[in-house]
Amino acid sequence: MPQMITSDSNPSVKLYRKLVSAKKYRSEYNMFPLEGLRLVKDAAEENAELHCVMITESCMKKLSERSDALDFLPEKTREKALVITDSIGEKLASTDGTQGIFAICRMPALPSLSDTVNADGRYIMLHSIQDPGNMGTVIRTADAMGVSAVIACGCCDIFSPKTVRSTMGSLFRMKLCIASEDEAFEEFAAKRIKTYAAVIDKDALSLTDCRFADGSAVLIGNEGNGLPEETAMRCSERLTIRMHGSVNSLNAATAASIIMWELTK
Amino acid sequence: MPQMITSDSNPSVKLYRKLVSAKKYRSEYNMFPLEGLRLVKDAAEENAELHCVMITESCMKKLSERSDALDFLPEKTREKALVITDSIGEKLASTDGTQGIFAICRMPALPSLSDTVNADGRYIMLHSIQDPGNMGTVIRTADAMGVSAVIACGCCDIFSPKTVRSTMGSLFRMKLCIASEDEAFEEFAAKRIKTYAAVIDKDALSLTDCRFADGSAVLIGNEGNGLPEETAMRCSERLTIRMHGSVNSLNAATAASIIMWELTK
Repeated sequence: MPQMITSDSNPSVKLYRKLVSAKKYRSEYNMFPLEGLRLVKDAAEENAELHCVMITESCMKKLSERSDALDFLPEKTREKALVITDSIGEKLASTDGTQGIFAICRMPALPSLSDTVNADGRYIMLHSIQDPGNMGTVIRTADAMGVSAVIACGCCDIFSPKTVRSTMGSLFRMKLCIASEDEAFEEFAAKRIKTYAAVIDKDALSLTDCRFADGSAVLIGNEGNGLPEETAMRCSERLTIRMHGSVNSLNAATAASIIMWELTK
Repeated sequence: MPQMITSDSNPSVKLYRKLVSAKKYRSEYNMFPLEGLRLVKDAAEENAELHCVMITESCMKKLSERSDALDFLPEKTREKALVITDSIGEKLASTDGTQGIFAICRMPALPSLSDTVNADGRYIMLHSIQDPGNMGTVIRTADAMGVSAVIACGCCDIFSPKTVRSTMGSLFRMKLCIASEDEAFEEFAAKRIKTYAAVIDKDALSLTDCRFADGSAVLIGNEGNGLPEETAMRCSERLTIRMHGSVNSLNAATAASIIMWELTK
């Protein structure tokens, strides 16, 4: 029977709450929090390193009704799983109607740009995306579309609870890089990657007329402001999603999704 | 100078809060709340009927620095605009860092299905979409793509604050219908509209091979469960977005966006 935690001053409980609260703690400990059965399972399946798993009594009871209970966890993680009271579970939960399973995951070492960018890849570079839900949705969609990697430049934290949740497990599968704009353009130039700036500009190349080849990267800008003009100017091509009537924008994740669809099909 | 409200038991303040709180009040009064300058402007520009507009002192001060101040409002709405204290504004706000402008808008009369569905249109029918953010994003994207109408069947309330906010003004422009599944299929049959069920099924027609013609409707299912099999069975065709590797789903709004892109391009 796993150890039972009844106090919210338990070190694992305290660490989990810290990791939820701010990026600085996630960076300091090099860990991030996971909530929910699907995310914890995805992490285990993709061999992410789980520092600890905490399960409420109610969740434990439900899981024990199934023969496989905690079998999805690697043995050494399962052995040190902690059972927590439901009231501690409530304090850890970021979602309504929490399932009562939480984990602390070690951040994977992100690959370097030079290991990531290949001459024949197809890339999305996100520039200053600030909404964690958009960030997560783009990572999820990139994974589903088979984009070679997502490169984040000046974006919100990819390990925040909301981003992680929105990726629906793709965080553990998708190749992700964090880089500065200069580093990314240098690497693209070195590997002769053609760069496309996604802009709102009726004179830009229409996405419907764009034939992407291997060795392409599309840059997507911030939700409110789009790509900075100086950044767009550094790209080989400007492309746009032609819009109907008076609408002059799409949600950033929607625009990125449509572009990734065309980029990889 | 507009009238100044200092008490949160003022009837307009109370009505606004009721409309934010629950669908039953929105249906009872046939009104819905709007927050933020852009939404209120969009509503005014699209000739939505504004029952009342409330502006905090701070917001009023900022607006007065511009010569056009409240000129975007129709004259009769401007005349009865209310100034509220900043602390009442805080109580009305659903968003962090509220801009301090709120309106109560009359629900537009939604068009009937028979007036909406035409033999040469291209439609999206949403089946049991429950997330207000997804609902709003689909409406916004449909507007940008030039989809003929969005038909909502068993979905969350399109007039909830979060849906309205996610539409970014498209709520006032996009043709929207609420219908039962049976009514929709009857209308599609009467107008000889070809119906496509969006499903996760590797044997279904790939979206990349699908050539949509005028007179098409695509049905998109619920976030967690997709389309009910009985509903998919009623459609002329099953279509799917082929996915990469182990990913087996997209966010519902993402899937709908990619489909609308293909439907209208």
